[in-house]
Amino acid sequence: MTGHQAPRRGRGRRPAAEVRASVLEAAGRVLLEEGLPAVTFDRIAREAGSSKMTLYKWWPSPGALAAEAYFAGSEEALDFHDSGDLAADLTAQLTAFVRLLTVAGAGRPVSELIGAAQLDPELGRAWSESYALPRRELARVRLRIARDRGELREGVDLDVMVDQLWGAVYHRMLVLRVPFDETLAPRLVDQALHGAARREAEPGA
Amino acid sequence: MTGHQAPRRGRGRRPAAEVRASVLEAAGRVLLEEGLPAVTFDRIAREAGSSKMTLYKWWPSPGALAAEAYFAGSEEALDFHDSGDLAADLTAQLTAFVRLLTVAGAGRPVSELIGAAQLDPELGRAWSESYALPRRELARVRLRIARDRGELREGVDLDVMVDQLWGAVYHRMLVLRVPFDETLAPRLVDQALHGAARREAEPGA
Repeated sequence: MTGHQAPRRGRGRRPAAEVRASVLEAAGRVLLEEGLPAVTFDRIAREAGSSKMTLYKWWPSPGALAAEAYFAGSEEALDFHDSGDLAADLTAQLTAFVRLLTVAGAGRPVSELIGAAQLDPELGRAWSESYALPRRELARVRLRIARDRGELREGVDLDVMVDQLWGAVYHRMLVLRVPFDETLAPRLVDQALHGAARREAEPGA
Repeated sequence: MTGHQAPRRGRGRRPAAEVRASVLEAAGRVLLEEGLPAVTFDRIAREAGSSKMTLYKWWPSPGALAAEAYFAGSEEALDFHDSGDLAADLTAQLTAFVRLLTVAGAGRPVSELIGAAQLDPELGRAWSESYALPRRELARVRLRIARDRGELREGVDLDVMVDQLWGAVYHRMLVLRVPFDETLAPRLVDQALHGAARREAEPGA
């Protein structure tokens, strides 16, 4: 603990919630700016004016800290709105998600995190529990509202919608590894909501 | 070159195509049985009765060899049929894909390969060029047939269909990291083809 990196009140005085917030902020910033390998307990403790012991106590590994920091740091950017127009709201949220990964530069650190999660079961669990599943639950909440309003068809599978909207973006980034931009968002939403098949009842079909 | 692991004719006698096939077979088998870390040039040269120099000449890295071996080894299992019924054909292919990842045990090595691809740009390129993009092209071929037959709606985005079918499976495996089984396949196909939205013209809607 050098303490010269972040101004703070006397040693041991900061409430735990405040320390936790500083640590998550520092970890999220280092992750986005320098990538996953830069997120070490040493570095983050120094940047947050905390102690390495505290970090060891709160997180099983630097990867788990990075996953939680990314969740906390992206929460506002990836917020779900309810304007009453499901297609518009999904398009807005997915556009924000694509921008975060592309223009805001989160694509590389997020790919590194998910990549490392495939090779390290403990980080895999941390990524899943601290980021991916909580984010899916936020998407489900917005989709349940739409279902309860009768905007979705009977028997719709909300988890499949999540796979076909956000999962589709991850597919381009992680599996195909091709460039993509926010023009993808409305196409994903349109096809997820209205399907790719020609409708039997369509005029002229 | 010890030569005692695989029976072969005299040194230097095998045609290149035959050596290449043996190497891909050995790499695919070791990848599926033991995972990506076991796929080394040393090990695969020994198993295939080839020389390490040959492997160095043909593949930039063991990861690139593993990606091509997985493509070659999964080609038959992941073949696209054309029975004239798009939904049935997509469901059959996706069911085979899910089975390959789950009951056939390819999930772990494929996750490792894609994971390592996020951390190693050269492997990333090899995975994308030797597996992911060629497989997408095979899917596009089947989808183009359906589009040309008028089974898909005007302006449909075939790449988005690929993202919303196969990408959705990868999403569960890599990002959410939750168990899944072949019951996912028909749900993905149904929602990708017919959409999640309630249809305005639907009786009772």
